[in-house]
Amino acid sequence: MADRREAVIDLLGALAYGELTAFERMATDSRMAPTVTDKAELARMAAAEFAHYEALVRHLKERVGVDPEVAMAPFVEVIDRFHDVTQPNDWLEGLIKAYVGDSLAADFYREVAALLDDETSAIVVEVLSDTGHAEFVVERVRAAIALDPPLAGRLALWARRLVGEALSQAQHVAAQRDALVDLLAGSTGPMGLAEVMGMFNRLTDRHSERIAALGLSG
Amino acid sequence: MADRREAVIDLLGALAYGELTAFERMATDSRMAPTVTDKAELARMAAAEFAHYEALVRHLKERVGVDPEVAMAPFVEVIDRFHDVTQPNDWLEGLIKAYVGDSLAADFYREVAALLDDETSAIVVEVLSDTGHAEFVVERVRAAIALDPPLAGRLALWARRLVGEALSQAQHVAAQRDALVDLLAGSTGPMGLAEVMGMFNRLTDRHSERIAALGLSG
Repeated sequence: MADRREAVIDLLGALAYGELTAFERMATDSRMAPTVTDKAELARMAAAEFAHYEALVRHLKERVGVDPEVAMAPFVEVIDRFHDVTQPNDWLEGLIKAYVGDSLAADFYREVAALLDDETSAIVVEVLSDTGHAEFVVERVRAAIALDPPLAGRLALWARRLVGEALSQAQHVAAQRDALVDLLAGSTGPMGLAEVMGMFNRLTDRHSERIAALGLSG
Repeated sequence: MADRREAVIDLLGALAYGELTAFERMATDSRMAPTVTDKAELARMAAAEFAHYEALVRHLKERVGVDPEVAMAPFVEVIDRFHDVTQPNDWLEGLIKAYVGDSLAADFYREVAALLDDETSAIVVEVLSDTGHAEFVVERVRAAIALDPPLAGRLALWARRLVGEALSQAQHVAAQRDALVDLLAGSTGPMGLAEVMGMFNRLTDRHSERIAALGLSG
């Protein structure tokens, strides 16, 4: 049970620091917006991420009884590195990063929530239910590609790179956080290797659907 | 009365774009934070600015009946320029910019609110009442100076530069926005030159008090 608690703290700590940095990076990327309205749309997404961060920190302190800074610490380097190697070069790359990153994280945490105790599961689902500020991204990216079709190829590559970097950083985490890996796929955990593979297939499928909805080739 | 309406739109448009860019720049500057807790403190200030922006945009649309993007447009260049020439070089400069900028803008708008119709005055006061997230700045800056006293001189210069740049950009605005200047100091306005001078003296005095509270040599 100690290991299980450790794994829950890891999950919430990683999610919290992920939300805080998503906030910071989206806000930074909003500077590249072509209009004030666009800037405000991405800023709104960022502000929602910060609200999630606050909810998670409150939960870690009050319900789990752990210092949020301690819970986040193991993930600071790996999440910062993800952002550093995926700095968008322009507004559209920033939009796609916000959309793909947000959605992929939400899908992953929804899958994992099913494995958790009710209280942890409830906070994770609650925090993730307030996304959906990202729909404007689909419209903006499709409009840009309609004006300049060759864009689709470059942006598709960019989306692929984002997922590749996310997986690569996730492997670093897996190599270091035994309790977390045990929770997901350990001998006492609820998922065997087949279930973990199944989960990754579902995440990848949903990612591909989103990429198609954006009008990217793939 | 047309001029008065124009001046009110200018004031709200400038405040809205100021809040949106304050959000974006504070969030960006939070990357320099030495700890996750510090990063979250500045992020919290930024998120409050975004909530102000949303309230102002709603007011412009629903009560004033003007496209917020149109209201903000005349101030985009001048406010962006202010931020571009005052990019903080480190975490402490970022904190001081957030604190000094936020407070100076709040003081200015509180002075001006007294000259406005009740409804406009109410939204301005409401938006500004939710500041005060900045108090942690005083503690952090004082602690840093206690550890390294020569810092005080450099940071005092920085604070002076911030005010100088803000005044310089304000002069650009004044040169271009006749209705606004008329509202504040025109022949039909409520303030004569003496009153305007008095207002600037009060703003400067309060700024000096804040600089002293930060432990800067002033």
